[in-house]
Amino acid sequence: MRVALGVSYRGGGYNGWQSQPDGRTVQDALEKGLSAFAAQPIRTICAGRTDAGVHGINQVVHFDTEVDREPFSWVRGSNRYLPPDIAIQWCRFPGDAFHARNSARGRRYAYLLLESAVRPAIESGQCGWIFRPLDQAALEAAAGRLIGEHDFSSFRSSECQAASPIKTLREITVQRRGVYWRFEFEASAFLHHMVRNLMGCILAVGSGTRSADWVSEVLAARDRKVAAPTFAPDGLYFLGPTYDAELDIPRHVAALDWLP
Amino acid sequence: MRVALGVSYRGGGYNGWQSQPDGRTVQDALEKGLSAFAAQPIRTICAGRTDAGVHGINQVVHFDTEVDREPFSWVRGSNRYLPPDIAIQWCRFPGDAFHARNSARGRRYAYLLLESAVRPAIESGQCGWIFRPLDQAALEAAAGRLIGEHDFSSFRSSECQAASPIKTLREITVQRRGVYWRFEFEASAFLHHMVRNLMGCILAVGSGTRSADWVSEVLAARDRKVAAPTFAPDGLYFLGPTYDAELDIPRHVAALDWLP
Repeated sequence: MRVALGVSYRGGGYNGWQSQPDGRTVQDALEKGLSAFAAQPIRTICAGRTDAGVHGINQVVHFDTEVDREPFSWVRGSNRYLPPDIAIQWCRFPGDAFHARNSARGRRYAYLLLESAVRPAIESGQCGWIFRPLDQAALEAAAGRLIGEHDFSSFRSSECQAASPIKTLREITVQRRGVYWRFEFEASAFLHHMVRNLMGCILAVGSGTRSADWVSEVLAARDRKVAAPTFAPDGLYFLGPTYDAELDIPRHVAALDWLP
Repeated sequence: MRVALGVSYRGGGYNGWQSQPDGRTVQDALEKGLSAFAAQPIRTICAGRTDAGVHGINQVVHFDTEVDREPFSWVRGSNRYLPPDIAIQWCRFPGDAFHARNSARGRRYAYLLLESAVRPAIESGQCGWIFRPLDQAALEAAAGRLIGEHDFSSFRSSECQAASPIKTLREITVQRRGVYWRFEFEASAFLHHMVRNLMGCILAVGSGTRSADWVSEVLAARDRKVAAPTFAPDGLYFLGPTYDAELDIPRHVAALDWLP
């Protein structure tokens, strides 16, 4: 039976999602907990791998197993074997045609940023920080230059394994909430470090250092060296993949309400 | 010169506020950072000591020093010597009559609680958790029984060092925000573990286990043994003290906007 799970995690304590020999990744911790609950080895496939320090709100994984449990039992039972900063949110049996990565129609990320003269403390590791004042119109102008189908080579890390740098960036929203800025990105898929690289350029414009025209020049150059530095992972949250509605995969989880 | 500072911190990594020989407290880390910046030993007095795992939003400290720096320099300079989960928010020179603890007219705490079938992950260590549904009217009825000047011996830990168990609880507010409940408490002062003990009783009523009349009985008994167990520290935030307005001590800091 194919099992799909929604997983939330705080990324600060892990070397990213993908399993590594040293075992200090989210995937390693999740599979260890699932295998303990199922009393047999379980290996998962995820919708989107996240980097070290990046958080997951509604990461989706799937795996096949002979173990027969109720959905609620997979959630509550496995959570007992997971560390405090990882928790399964829901369980579905979506059928054998479902694939956490290949079935996804898009992915969403949020970036949470503190604009303050003082660095974060309570929220350290959970938001980015900028001390320069930001201008909403300038942020939105920069974001507008990035929407659409483009070759995003300028925003791609040298370690990126994607087959093509051409992706469709469907939407970037910019909202101010008190002293926080919340950016949301939706795309067909994202390249390695793409959101953090986009954030670096958007903030260069929002703080008055660069113009929106410069963003278009960076995009056209298809050269990582001309873009702004990769922004901190602290404020980056993988909100999750989107699937066709008939698959009935939850998009909203309680953890989403945590973000300002 | 007397210096007053506002301090925010996440309490999860510390054995509470008060200095200890092993040095793993918020006060120890703060004084180490301040002493490094000032290049001379600095010892602080705080408005309200917090327990292990409890967070501070606008904790206030004062100390006397010959070191002459601008307020902004105390903030930014000292923060460079503090760990990521502690940051000074503001600096004032309030005059020698000011005393962080004795000048306070009251103190405010917030308790943040997740009501969900699934335990916290993203927000682990930063909110309490209850899986039973809560009823707002019942929560408010329980809270109403606690308002006023009372002998709070039933809500006082055996380690409490306060001279008197009689305190004035001025206000308890209960707000639902998505899947979170936010409780705010304002009192003249609080006994050791008082908010966590109050939370245990309020939640027993809010989840239908006990009646509001039972809260009045617990209060009248003046006996810790009849009250509910001490609730988890994870969701407890010291919002800060309140002072006479002419002292011009900030009540709002950026970190306050972080809480749902």
